[in-house]
Amino acid sequence: MPEKIDPWSSQQLTKYEHVFKEFGLKEFPEEWSKHLDHYLFKRNLVIAHRDFEKIMKCIQEKKPFINITGIASSGRLHLGHKFDIDLFKFFKTKKAKNYFTIADIDAYVSRPNEKVPSLEKAKEFAVNNLAHVLALGLDEKDVYVQSKYTTRYYEFAFELSKRITRNEFEAVYGHVDLGKISAALLQYADILHPQLKEFEGKMPSITGIGLDQDPHARIARDLAQRVTYPMELPSFVYFKHQQGLREHGKMSSSDLENTIFLDDSEEDIKKKINKAFTGGRNTLEEQKKLGTNIEIDRVIELLRFHYPDEKKLNEIIELQKTGKQMSGELKQFAIEFLLDWRTKHLKLVEKNKKTAEKIVYGK
Amino acid sequence: MPEKIDPWSSQQLTKYEHVFKEFGLKEFPEEWSKHLDHYLFKRNLVIAHRDFEKIMKCIQEKKPFINITGIASSGRLHLGHKFDIDLFKFFKTKKAKNYFTIADIDAYVSRPNEKVPSLEKAKEFAVNNLAHVLALGLDEKDVYVQSKYTTRYYEFAFELSKRITRNEFEAVYGHVDLGKISAALLQYADILHPQLKEFEGKMPSITGIGLDQDPHARIARDLAQRVTYPMELPSFVYFKHQQGLREHGKMSSSDLENTIFLDDSEEDIKKKINKAFTGGRNTLEEQKKLGTNIEIDRVIELLRFHYPDEKKLNEIIELQKTGKQMSGELKQFAIEFLLDWRTKHLKLVEKNKKTAEKIVYGK
Repeated sequence: MPEKIDPWSSQQLTKYEHVFKEFGLKEFPEEWSKHLDHYLFKRNLVIAHRDFEKIMKCIQEKKPFINITGIASSGRLHLGHKFDIDLFKFFKTKKAKNYFTIADIDAYVSRPNEKVPSLEKAKEFAVNNLAHVLALGLDEKDVYVQSKYTTRYYEFAFELSKRITRNEFEAVYGHVDLGKISAALLQYADILHPQLKEFEGKMPSITGIGLDQDPHARIARDLAQRVTYPMELPSFVYFKHQQGLREHGKMSSSDLENTIFLDDSEEDIKKKINKAFTGGRNTLEEQKKLGTNIEIDRVIELLRFHYPDEKKLNEIIELQKTGKQMSGELKQFAIEFLLDWRTKHLKLVEKNKKTAEKIVYGK
Repeated sequence: MPEKIDPWSSQQLTKYEHVFKEFGLKEFPEEWSKHLDHYLFKRNLVIAHRDFEKIMKCIQEKKPFINITGIASSGRLHLGHKFDIDLFKFFKTKKAKNYFTIADIDAYVSRPNEKVPSLEKAKEFAVNNLAHVLALGLDEKDVYVQSKYTTRYYEFAFELSKRITRNEFEAVYGHVDLGKISAALLQYADILHPQLKEFEGKMPSITGIGLDQDPHARIARDLAQRVTYPMELPSFVYFKHQQGLREHGKMSSSDLENTIFLDDSEEDIKKKINKAFTGGRNTLEEQKKLGTNIEIDRVIELLRFHYPDEKKLNEIIELQKTGKQMSGELKQFAIEFLLDWRTKHLKLVEKNKKTAEKIVYGK
């Protein structure tokens, strides 16, 4: 029996190769990373794909393609979300038609009541999340909020329910829960609806996801072949999950100590980074002799995911590897980078709050 | 284990009492039928109810209540649909807020591909059905088409999915099929959404249904208590299913010989009525001696459901019971009534086609 990936579980997937083989993903080739010439690709953070050839072709030939991602508005945004948005922004620099979903209904129906007790709450999160998303560089026209979207989108989500059987659903997800069926139907609609004639029409599309979201991708691809409209199979790139700051756990909304949120206070950031798990040695002598084990160093990992300056990052890694710098200095560098980023970002969030409210509440 | 009622099955329910007891329905009291003073109630065609007290109170005190019914646009309309619409029209004469659904998405997702292969086809049926519905006396403002309705309705249908578990669904319907889950969510939304603050707000509502639709009613009532909005439990009246014209089978879209369609030709009507199963006797002598067994007579049944003139109908029944009239004469009377009705009705259908198209396609 194939291993089930539950997109709603918070369990971390580490056995990448096993999963690639099991589900037919392809490794993301180095030549594409080189060609795309952006730190998001050059740092081996994007590890696999389905049909990315089609998107490479569009990029090389400067042809349009559809750029899709989104967030379920069920809490505060953190650096994990930022990476996803950075990837979206990269595709936006090409000839992309942009569809960024603020998935408020999805968030409400798929999350437990303790987290999202009402649709009103999901919409509050939506306003907050949207202000951050706009601050990160997306435009109003790149974004839609599910609960304010057109009827055609909902009609299509319901249409899709006829094209997937209960057995298929259960085989892929391991359960048949009504709220999660609804959330899944909305996600398939998010991925496929831009190809309807009322939107862009048949066109290659790209979505960056974590490996744990692959079940949605597989079903969305099946559905693209089953609907009564002409559609390209949607393409996907798979990124590595950013690890948490501590030795155990991953960056996720429910793990405060492991996660840097986009609206963390200065104190929070300092505290979290200072407590981060590193690959540095305990004494100056050891550090000089052995250098940092950068493979396990969470501060290095964070910089690899978010620090854009390729040259500077390589210098830092070199200093760490060769033991010329202690982890304390590395942490100080990361704190300064994050605090600087934070100040600029939060100013933009403040500036975008009114627009976010207008988009979510329509006034 | 309680008997399951499958609203998608075409099996006829005859053991009414058993079902009343099993599912907590109450018999429709004679005093209410008298008070309502309309043939739809006086002829024992409305047999049971849930919470109709609330609606009686609204009617007596001339207070507003919500009037809800609809049709899944999956084929031609027949006399079974007409009865449902007649009941809706009766409530419309009171202080009702009217919500008649043309359920095109429901029809597409819940019906097999042989019947409704695409949403386009469901919309074609919707135009046809809507022209008939308007011809029967509903106004444009009484009606909405699912695929053209407001986003709030869809949002609400998805919201509801969080308030019902897979086990509840399976216990009530006996299965968990994705298309039918979608159709059911839309039906719950059809019944409950008028009580949202964006529509009428909390208010008693009435829907006339066949016993086979009770599963939807039970879940809709459960959901009314579980949503995060204040809602009255929706009330329901249950009507008898009109039997088919032949000895076996019921009036349904898939049984051409048993069913009179609203757009049947004159020839069809004559042929079907002439072949109808009656309680009349074979010879003049027998008929005079024994009279018609009106309990099994399908022509009498048809007249009881659709012939409005109470006095004339009682005369006919008396003539038949006492053997003063042969079944051939009864059939002739029914044919004349139906052909006369047909001529007037089809003229109105023709007149309403453009409006129907405008409502369904928005142009």
